[in-house]
Amino acid sequence: MHRVKVPALARVMPLDPQESQHLRVLRLRVGAQVQVFDGEGGEARATVIRLDEGGAMLELGERVENDRETPQPVTLAVALLKGDKLSDVVRAATELGVARVQLLQTRYADVPEIGDAKLVRLRRVAAEASKQSRRAVTPDVLAPIPVSKLVLDGQGFLAHPGSAARVTDSLDWSAPVTFVSGPEGGFSDAEVAALTASGFVSVTLGPRILRAETAPLALLGAVAATGV
Amino acid sequence: MHRVKVPALARVMPLDPQESQHLRVLRLRVGAQVQVFDGEGGEARATVIRLDEGGAMLELGERVENDRETPQPVTLAVALLKGDKLSDVVRAATELGVARVQLLQTRYADVPEIGDAKLVRLRRVAAEASKQSRRAVTPDVLAPIPVSKLVLDGQGFLAHPGSAARVTDSLDWSAPVTFVSGPEGGFSDAEVAALTASGFVSVTLGPRILRAETAPLALLGAVAATGV
Repeated sequence: MHRVKVPALARVMPLDPQESQHLRVLRLRVGAQVQVFDGEGGEARATVIRLDEGGAMLELGERVENDRETPQPVTLAVALLKGDKLSDVVRAATELGVARVQLLQTRYADVPEIGDAKLVRLRRVAAEASKQSRRAVTPDVLAPIPVSKLVLDGQGFLAHPGSAARVTDSLDWSAPVTFVSGPEGGFSDAEVAALTASGFVSVTLGPRILRAETAPLALLGAVAATGV
Repeated sequence: MHRVKVPALARVMPLDPQESQHLRVLRLRVGAQVQVFDGEGGEARATVIRLDEGGAMLELGERVENDRETPQPVTLAVALLKGDKLSDVVRAATELGVARVQLLQTRYADVPEIGDAKLVRLRRVAAEASKQSRRAVTPDVLAPIPVSKLVLDGQGFLAHPGSAARVTDSLDWSAPVTFVSGPEGGFSDAEVAALTASGFVSVTLGPRILRAETAPLALLGAVAATGV
């Protein structure tokens, strides 16, 4: 069944021109059933009650339980990366269940800043990936902050070469979870010290050197492979 | 220290023109130390004993223990995927420690076949990723076979939506390990039945829908996150 993102679940939901056009391309007709979701966990059936050149309108049906979310929200805090790498990370992290991506400015960053246009693009990538992986939540992508400003709420884990601790040994779902992943050049000693002082625990991803775009997916994959 | 791939460890090792040129670009000089590896687990120090327009030559030094390999060889058996997705999978799988990538022809494949040139390109990707992740083993990339021809040697796991079993609960390192990952359209029922009959165990990657290129990395990430 086709999934449509709507600003909010409401008795009658007019669609924006792009989504309306999409329904027409799919050759849906008045009376067709679709699934709607609001990106914040709300999901329901809906019926197409209007579909013509003027646009599309849906009528709300039954609420649907969506059990694709982790028991507690997962945040991925990830260093700014070059080129399309951040898009790749945001896309896969969304599939793997993150609720939020917090971009980080780091000392040895590949790039020091990110433009507004790129941030908008990353949010669009998250929205598309959310839809494709049939989630009811669209992860937020938050503008970069320095590592020192990252506040730990719940449990925090840091992918750090040389650590022996395993993420799956320490992870419980009593509180929100944050994973931190560095730039290609790694975190500076001061950044690691700051994160550790804030309560982040260093965990292993094996004895090999992972690229900055592979490490966060390995961490999130380890969590997904526990079945949550 | 710069790492150089050589055909075999030998007392004196002439380098091919490309590697020779690379050493010159790095401005190394006669007497410089490098690390050599043969792609089959052999790794050693070496000294540059010649470096000029005629080429480069290395003299073997001490053998080096490389502990970046998994306790038993890991094979990733992965369906043919469209575009550059296979390259991305081979690159990340190499970082995550696989010893071999076995390409699979599947019923609902995105692409039915792969050309020789592409196979050569995938092997080059594996060689480069092996070097970058400082492994002493270069994973082999094997030409596609049908799923029904995949023989299980040791333990086998199949990423399959709807399964509740966790890979890390069943995995031990008493025997080689094979992970199987399907195409975008999933395995057919007959393929899943054949794999199950061969002894492959279905495991979960969480309740969300993963793209075909994300699933193998989540599986391998789960293994890397155990520290091996």
